[in-house]
Amino acid sequence: MYALAIHGGAGVIPRHLLNECESEYQRTLEAALGAGYSILERGGSSLDAVMAAVRTLEDDPLFNAGHGAALTHAGTAELDAAVMDGRQLRAGAVAAVRRVRNPVELARCVMERSPHVLLVGDGAEEFALEEGMVLVPNDYFRTPKRVQELEQHLRRNPLVDLAPAPHQGTVGAVARDAGGDLAAATSTGGTTGKRPGRVGDSPLIGAGTYAKNGVCAVSTTGHGEAFIRAVAAYHICCALEHRQLTLAGAVREMLHDILPALGGQGGIIAVDGAGNIVTDFSTEGMFRGARDSCGRHEIAIYRQ
Amino acid sequence: MYALAIHGGAGVIPRHLLNECESEYQRTLEAALGAGYSILERGGSSLDAVMAAVRTLEDDPLFNAGHGAALTHAGTAELDAAVMDGRQLRAGAVAAVRRVRNPVELARCVMERSPHVLLVGDGAEEFALEEGMVLVPNDYFRTPKRVQELEQHLRRNPLVDLAPAPHQGTVGAVARDAGGDLAAATSTGGTTGKRPGRVGDSPLIGAGTYAKNGVCAVSTTGHGEAFIRAVAAYHICCALEHRQLTLAGAVREMLHDILPALGGQGGIIAVDGAGNIVTDFSTEGMFRGARDSCGRHEIAIYRQ
Repeated sequence: MYALAIHGGAGVIPRHLLNECESEYQRTLEAALGAGYSILERGGSSLDAVMAAVRTLEDDPLFNAGHGAALTHAGTAELDAAVMDGRQLRAGAVAAVRRVRNPVELARCVMERSPHVLLVGDGAEEFALEEGMVLVPNDYFRTPKRVQELEQHLRRNPLVDLAPAPHQGTVGAVARDAGGDLAAATSTGGTTGKRPGRVGDSPLIGAGTYAKNGVCAVSTTGHGEAFIRAVAAYHICCALEHRQLTLAGAVREMLHDILPALGGQGGIIAVDGAGNIVTDFSTEGMFRGARDSCGRHEIAIYRQ
Repeated sequence: MYALAIHGGAGVIPRHLLNECESEYQRTLEAALGAGYSILERGGSSLDAVMAAVRTLEDDPLFNAGHGAALTHAGTAELDAAVMDGRQLRAGAVAAVRRVRNPVELARCVMERSPHVLLVGDGAEEFALEEGMVLVPNDYFRTPKRVQELEQHLRRNPLVDLAPAPHQGTVGAVARDAGGDLAAATSTGGTTGKRPGRVGDSPLIGAGTYAKNGVCAVSTTGHGEAFIRAVAAYHICCALEHRQLTLAGAVREMLHDILPALGGQGGIIAVDGAGNIVTDFSTEGMFRGARDSCGRHEIAIYRQ
């Protein structure tokens, strides 16, 4: 049994706006799902699978991570990512990096090649250079569509910190491989018009990303601040391990009981130790895909 | 019933080195404990109490937070802090700031005056300026003792990322006020010789700092990376809320079962909803103090 789920963000996604490019979104989600799933099919690790899926989404300008990231109030891209390997609870993350093409790759590098879990800003980029990664100019991330979104946002919300954009395109993946190992990864540009230096839940181990073998792997998307205060990903892990909730029950409790009390909406993908996949959300929709070795294979945006 | 506990870091503290200045450490711990406790005595909030205690420790060069922070490999101070208000699970944190005199005050400002939880680097300092805080030069944090410690560290460990210094002087406080509200705060300069941009558990909500009314408030110190991977503070909170462990039992499980498996040592202070204080550590010692309205009043460094 092996299984992979991905997300490309949750939020209000007006159908009339999406109509033009729904098939493009679906094509990229299918490509990301395929990139990860083919690794699992060949007997590869869940860690490699979530990396391949997230990298594919980072490289596509439709999604708010890597190329095509949402822009800060100052017009720059600042990227966050995390990865966790459920085998030994190893984790790596980066936040507020501006010149790393694939932040999730740097997060893995932090996990595997440093004694640290989280590096931020210039120090994270210095580490990337030492590890032989090539930095790219910040303009690589800035697409015309994101520049336009920022301009619209600033017209509506001239003050920093007001009204985050409703559609958050954070991307993520969770997987169980044939050997039973779990892994999770998340990557994001944050919210359109965010204050430079603002870090959401995506790169925070336990908030937006967590994986523990035999329990579950989780990646979240939505109002990052609420997910941080709820320690959302780890709360779900604890609910499975110590309260005997099902994965679906634990995810439902988070999305529909705990987060609303904190003013938070969003989506969660997760896979448990047996390979059961859950994708759920409290928003209008969530870009998502799921595939497992028992024949499940789906790409979806709205509720079925 | 009201109660306050503080810590000034845990680690290997050679008695022959400490002898010279043990009374100085005790004096500052007593001052920090008094600063927070007097607020509780006057009917003030747990939030104000933990702020006053942590600010006192930040201002004292003996402790690794604020003035006298440990220095990075590059010789600069980079500071992290968090605060959490257990009433509504509100939280604020800053990481990798270089010019904020009292990082815990900026963390509180993030909590109360922004929609965010975590701001890092220059963006956090920009927010501080907007809020009317005065920045100080990085030299304010660099004391001769810390410069000397860094030089010793670099002679022994010329490579970045090797062998973090054994004694971590992170500071923190937890409190329950007479109204039953809980709060926690933590502040640190990180580890001597750390890579610039490295962020440990202190400013991460759920890892180094957490507070939830009716359950517990937690602040940690030690090998930050292990505390992050274990989501230490929130794990303890979950153990009380859902597994009916006592506070002492939950802290013991973390320090003596979970963290050692991740290669982590350190100390934890916590207070539960009833005002019971626990201070425990897996290192040789932890600078600490505890005081409550039932007459407990202690300052200690080693095991009793």
